[in-house]
This record gives sequence, C-alpha cells and structure tokens, in this order.
Amino acid sequence: MLNVRIVSVGKLKERYLLEGLAEYCKRLRPFCKLELIELKDEGMEKEATNMQRFIDANTFVLDVQGKEMKSEEFAQFLSKQSKSITFIIGSAQGVHESVKSKCRLLSLSKMTFTHDMCRLFLLEQIYRSFMIIKNSPYHK
Amino acid sequence: MLNVRIVSVGKLKERYLLEGLAEYCKRLRPFCKLELIELKDEGMEKEATNMQRFIDANTFVLDVQGKEMKSEEFAQFLSKQSKSITFIIGSAQGVHESVKSKCRLLSLSKMTFTHDMCRLFLLEQIYRSFMIIKNSPYHK
Repeated sequence: MLNVRIVSVGKLKERYLLEGLAEYCKRLRPFCKLELIELKDEGMEKEATNMQRFIDANTFVLDVQGKEMKSEEFAQFLSKQSKSITFIIGSAQGVHESVKSKCRLLSLSKMTFTHDMCRLFLLEQIYRSFMIIKNSPYHK
Repeated sequence: MLNVRIVSVGKLKERYLLEGLAEYCKRLRPFCKLELIELKDEGMEKEATNMQRFIDANTFVLDVQGKEMKSEEFAQFLSKQSKSITFIIGSAQGVHESVKSKCRLLSLSKMTFTHDMCRLFLLEQIYRSFMIIKNSPYHK
C-alpha cells in the first residue's frame, strides 16, 4: 500500500476544513496509508530545517510555479509510485528555496489558495486519483 | 456595489462545504452583493434551459477547458466589472454546449474538482480578489 505523506505548516483551525479533511482521510483509508504532518509555523528558514527529514527523491512541493497536471495525469503519476510519496505545503509565506531546490514542484492551480485549503484540495485530488485508477464513477 | 451571482446545479449537502461557503459569504458581505442560485439537478439539457435567463455579456462558465488566471489577474478582471457578473458551475456532467457557446469559459485549475467544492474555491478566489484590490494582508 502506498504511503502518502502530507507535510504542512501550522495547525489547521477552521472547523469546516478539518471536517473536509477527515472525510477524505476516511475515504482514502482503503487505498493508501496517509500521514498528515503539521510542522510548527516558525518562519521559512526554521521550517526549511524541519522539512529536511521529509525530503527524498519522491518529495513534491506545492508551489504556484510548479507543474500543473490534469486529474488524469496526476492519477497516472500516482499510480506509478510504489512505496511512498511526500507532498510539502508551505505556510502563507511559501517554502524556502533550500527545500524547493531539492524537490519537484507541483501546482494545483495558477490561482493561489490559502495553504489550509490546499490540504483539502490535495486530499480530494489524491482520492480522485484512486477513483480514476479503479474507474469508479466518482470522478465522472 | 458589484452584484456577484453564482449559479450552480444541485443542492449542496456536505456540511463542511456549507460551513465554508457561509464563512466566505459573511466575509464578502462588505464587498459585493452575493446571490447563490441553486438549479435543480435534472440533466444537462433541462439545466441549460434554466440557465438561459442568467446569461448575459458578463456570464462565465467554470470549465476545465476555460482560461486560467492567476489570482492577481482574476482580481484585476473583477475590479473592472461595474454592475454584475455571473458564474455558472455545472453538474458533474458539466454544462451543456448551448450555454457554453454563449459565455466565456474560466478555469480554476487544470485539475477537476467536485462541482460542490468548486463553489468554495470560487468564493475564496472572489474574496481573495477583493483583498488583493484593497492590498489587505490576507492574500500574502
């Protein structure tokens, strides 16, 4: 089972986003092992230090400059991962260059959303990917 | 005050999305007159008929094939509107060609999200636009 790690900055507070996240965590349970990691919001440099241990060849930073994919492409891409994949979502200030330079960049949209909302969007896309892979009606 | 109309299909049921929408409706109150219109989910053709009365020169259909904008461009674009603007969000099946052909198409992302989630994303972007226009720290 694929290990999906989402590293984000700061504690998610908005109740509606927490509920949305919980919903997609539940839905994703049969398809991947999901780890949601919240780092302290303590400035880009210190955050970058704390992010280092999550960086490997399969680590992606969500960034508006990153590669955009259609949901089908993202699903294809996810289906090729065998062990683990990590997504890093920065704070409102973004992610430090020292982290970005070691990772691939992925963009959910040309538009900027709150970093908290991005967690929900990303989880929905991961769930959608599994539904595309198994050709479930969810994504149609 | 700009009149912003969001026409969507089907009743929004997920509690967390309703809460998110309510939050952004509240935040938008000082900046625009917001009308959220829910059409019956009764098939693309019938929906297209019901959408006709909302179509004018300032009607946009959210569609993955549409024009993507950065948040700053979207804000610029919104700031140029003087009276009213309408956004149409289709059902999971999309929007009928007879509607799309009369409107401009706008895309929030290359990725597909649930049409219910799109309502939240769009409201957030509209709110973000007003914050960009008045140079508030929200969007930074």
